[in-house]
Amino acid sequence: MKAYQDLKQSFQRLHYLSKTIALLDWDHETYLPRKGVGYRADQQAFLSGLAHERLTSSQVGELIAACEAQLHELSSEEQANVRCWRKDHDKATKLPTAFVEKMERRCSLAKASWAEARQAGQFERFQEDLSALIDLSREKAQYYGGGDHPYDALMDLYEPGATCAQLDPILSALKDFVVSFLPTAMEKTQSVDASFLQGDYPIEGQLAFNEEVARAVGFDLEAGRIDATVHPFCTDLGPQDIRLTTRYDKRDFAVSLYSVLHEAGHGLYEQGFKAEHVATPMGESVSLGIHESQSRLWENKVGRSLAFWEDWYDAACRHLPSLQSFSPEQITLAVNRVSPSFIRVEADEVTYDLHIILRYEMEKALIAGDLQVKDVPGEWNERFKSMFGLEVPNDAQGCLQDIHWSMGGFGYFPTYTLGNLNSAQLFASARNALGASLHHMDQGAYVALLDWLRRQVHQHGRQYEPDELMKLATGKSTDPLMHQAYLKERFDSLSA
Amino acid sequence: MKAYQDLKQSFQRLHYLSKTIALLDWDHETYLPRKGVGYRADQQAFLSGLAHERLTSSQVGELIAACEAQLHELSSEEQANVRCWRKDHDKATKLPTAFVEKMERRCSLAKASWAEARQAGQFERFQEDLSALIDLSREKAQYYGGGDHPYDALMDLYEPGATCAQLDPILSALKDFVVSFLPTAMEKTQSVDASFLQGDYPIEGQLAFNEEVARAVGFDLEAGRIDATVHPFCTDLGPQDIRLTTRYDKRDFAVSLYSVLHEAGHGLYEQGFKAEHVATPMGESVSLGIHESQSRLWENKVGRSLAFWEDWYDAACRHLPSLQSFSPEQITLAVNRVSPSFIRVEADEVTYDLHIILRYEMEKALIAGDLQVKDVPGEWNERFKSMFGLEVPNDAQGCLQDIHWSMGGFGYFPTYTLGNLNSAQLFASARNALGASLHHMDQGAYVALLDWLRRQVHQHGRQYEPDELMKLATGKSTDPLMHQAYLKERFDSLSA
Repeated sequence: MKAYQDLKQSFQRLHYLSKTIALLDWDHETYLPRKGVGYRADQQAFLSGLAHERLTSSQVGELIAACEAQLHELSSEEQANVRCWRKDHDKATKLPTAFVEKMERRCSLAKASWAEARQAGQFERFQEDLSALIDLSREKAQYYGGGDHPYDALMDLYEPGATCAQLDPILSALKDFVVSFLPTAMEKTQSVDASFLQGDYPIEGQLAFNEEVARAVGFDLEAGRIDATVHPFCTDLGPQDIRLTTRYDKRDFAVSLYSVLHEAGHGLYEQGFKAEHVATPMGESVSLGIHESQSRLWENKVGRSLAFWEDWYDAACRHLPSLQSFSPEQITLAVNRVSPSFIRVEADEVTYDLHIILRYEMEKALIAGDLQVKDVPGEWNERFKSMFGLEVPNDAQGCLQDIHWSMGGFGYFPTYTLGNLNSAQLFASARNALGASLHHMDQGAYVALLDWLRRQVHQHGRQYEPDELMKLATGKSTDPLMHQAYLKERFDSLSA
Repeated sequence: MKAYQDLKQSFQRLHYLSKTIALLDWDHETYLPRKGVGYRADQQAFLSGLAHERLTSSQVGELIAACEAQLHELSSEEQANVRCWRKDHDKATKLPTAFVEKMERRCSLAKASWAEARQAGQFERFQEDLSALIDLSREKAQYYGGGDHPYDALMDLYEPGATCAQLDPILSALKDFVVSFLPTAMEKTQSVDASFLQGDYPIEGQLAFNEEVARAVGFDLEAGRIDATVHPFCTDLGPQDIRLTTRYDKRDFAVSLYSVLHEAGHGLYEQGFKAEHVATPMGESVSLGIHESQSRLWENKVGRSLAFWEDWYDAACRHLPSLQSFSPEQITLAVNRVSPSFIRVEADEVTYDLHIILRYEMEKALIAGDLQVKDVPGEWNERFKSMFGLEVPNDAQGCLQDIHWSMGGFGYFPTYTLGNLNSAQLFASARNALGASLHHMDQGAYVALLDWLRRQVHQHGRQYEPDELMKLATGKSTDPLMHQAYLKERFDSLSA
């Protein structure tokens, strides 16, 4: 169909632009000289404007409508593409240009005031911008419409189809479980402290070991690379160009190893689309909650298992001789250490979701207008105390720790927990399907597991909504049961 | 004037696009994963198309005409900008789109056939594409028009205003000088052979030393960086983002040091424009021959002097302890070693221009139709024998060694020699103007020299044509006299 071919070509061009913007971002984080930042910001804004113009153009709108009028002539994959293009086009056109500019301006102010406020530990410096961003986010939710709760429309940006009605009971059950399970998990790992594995781990050794592990789990380093940044991330710069970053700590190899495994999990998803789907929604990830399920699966389910360390111990000691002071059992115990703490990104696997639930509940209340911005620090600290049993010493370690709010990213946090739950659920289904081949976490297991994920998750691109995809892959919607079972099994197996 | 402001804004946007394309290129050479090459080529072609559309748009043409109609209302710098924008717009519009596409397609074929031919040492494999590219270049010269010789229009792309009528006598005199001077220069350096300085020079030491030198000559590493590539280059990714690359050889520190000094010379030019001229011709380099004068000046006039090694010897030994086996005099002698050889990019400072003159004469004859493509290898080898006294062993070391022809870059080579001549001429004028402050090649000398170059060359951007710029800075047009005087003085001063 000509309209479909024309539409596909339009999106192919938009893809070139988007991936160019992604390169500008990647370079910004990795290699951009300090003084180049100002020009780069203007350049990125200009390119983003070009991309937005193309996505919202009436020509694209007309081509989509033409395809919809003859949808039956298209294959089911092509239909999925048209459906997603419609959604992306509508999302982009629903926001008036003046609103988008207002939001962008406020975000750039907020990014600065948040950084200052965090530095000084003074919430008041961020309060006005945060208020404005919450008002703007509420306005944004109205433009998008849909959902019983205004927060639904915001979550939908990151997790299509997610609603408070669906998440409330899941997160509530999860919270109960974590609170009740926490003492057991802490007791299991109490014999190691935070400094247990510290030693002398030269960067070159970490780099070589990480690359060996990344390659072994299937990440193609000829179609990707690993660089160093302050905050690790994974970005897709083209169908055969997936870039991970990590952070090195000479005293602690685990920092870089687990961020490489985490980002490689994201990268495997990005490397897992079919070549013929490049530059179409069938060649794109479906949601952040599914994306995060891939990173958590390789980082935690695979990488923190005793089987993993039994298999990798010799190679790790070859690259990082200091590791010889520890046994595989000790390393496994230490990388699973549980201890309630203030900072989300440093949290262990058990308490992590409590950090998310706290944010989810507060964001919902802020967006609904049930919580005033001036009351955020007090509310945060009170909730934190009741969930973690700890007094937050200052806002930098409390409500100011994350960058998300300063970027207007309300609705983003819950995708991290969805990632954890999906990850356990997918891993359980993979184990059911693959049986004995996953007993040892070796090369054969990685191949089998990746192949299963390719078929069950990656190759579907955006064909199904996340909930539908989970049902197809695991037989049911996301719930906390497999995550709970996984944590119990993991901590049962640790030799304290 | 509104038309001028609108025009400036159009070119500001085009600048964002061009610098984005430059980043795609830089990344291609430095960090792009092997399998990402195919997508990147399509992406670059798309972005280049967008930039070309903007440069040739009728809207830009009309704004230029509107500015020209009220030129007297503009400052002299603004007038220079309008003049250059007119030239760039006309150059871009003079070539029909169908022609540009034909040329691009042929270049991409030729790049492959040239690489194959060079690999196999078989000129015939490249012959057909070379023929086609010469025909196309002749056609291109016709589209551009102007000049007594069709080669003039091609040179003008790289060196505005350069003509065969001007270059013929200069290059002929230079050739006579080099041939007569060569025996003296060879004798002076005969006590060292090519392996004289070889030793153990760890990359980290080279990197640290090179950065110290680059910083000392004034290259701002907070507004630029140095990476590693197979072929060193300098690229401008934005007003405060100038990136150099170099190549490391563990056995020979001089490879990376002199390419850093060379590229830093280019980089100092790019860092030398006034901030208010960003994204206008007043903030752009005027020609390749002037650009190359800056790189050669810092690489050779400064970097290969005995004064340089007297100043840097201790620092060099600190970073690269193997250098302690040599004296500053010995190092200076070795880095000035003269020996006729087959490969242009490995040539010493005396014989280098013979390589260029050979190419200049052959290109002129090819474009004029006085030399048949099938006769290129024979003609090359015969001329080489008469100039260098050496038999070319195979085409890979002869007429197939350079990539330029496969890119349709006829007219590019002479800018290298113009760079050498301009460099000596500018350096002589700087010494006249600055006197004693250049006796020692130390920090004070670099500051004085760079300041002089900023005022005489960099800050003029494209306000004057290269010939005019040379007259303003040195009192006369480019000629070989100062280059000859420089070589005599340099080789006189070496202690054999």
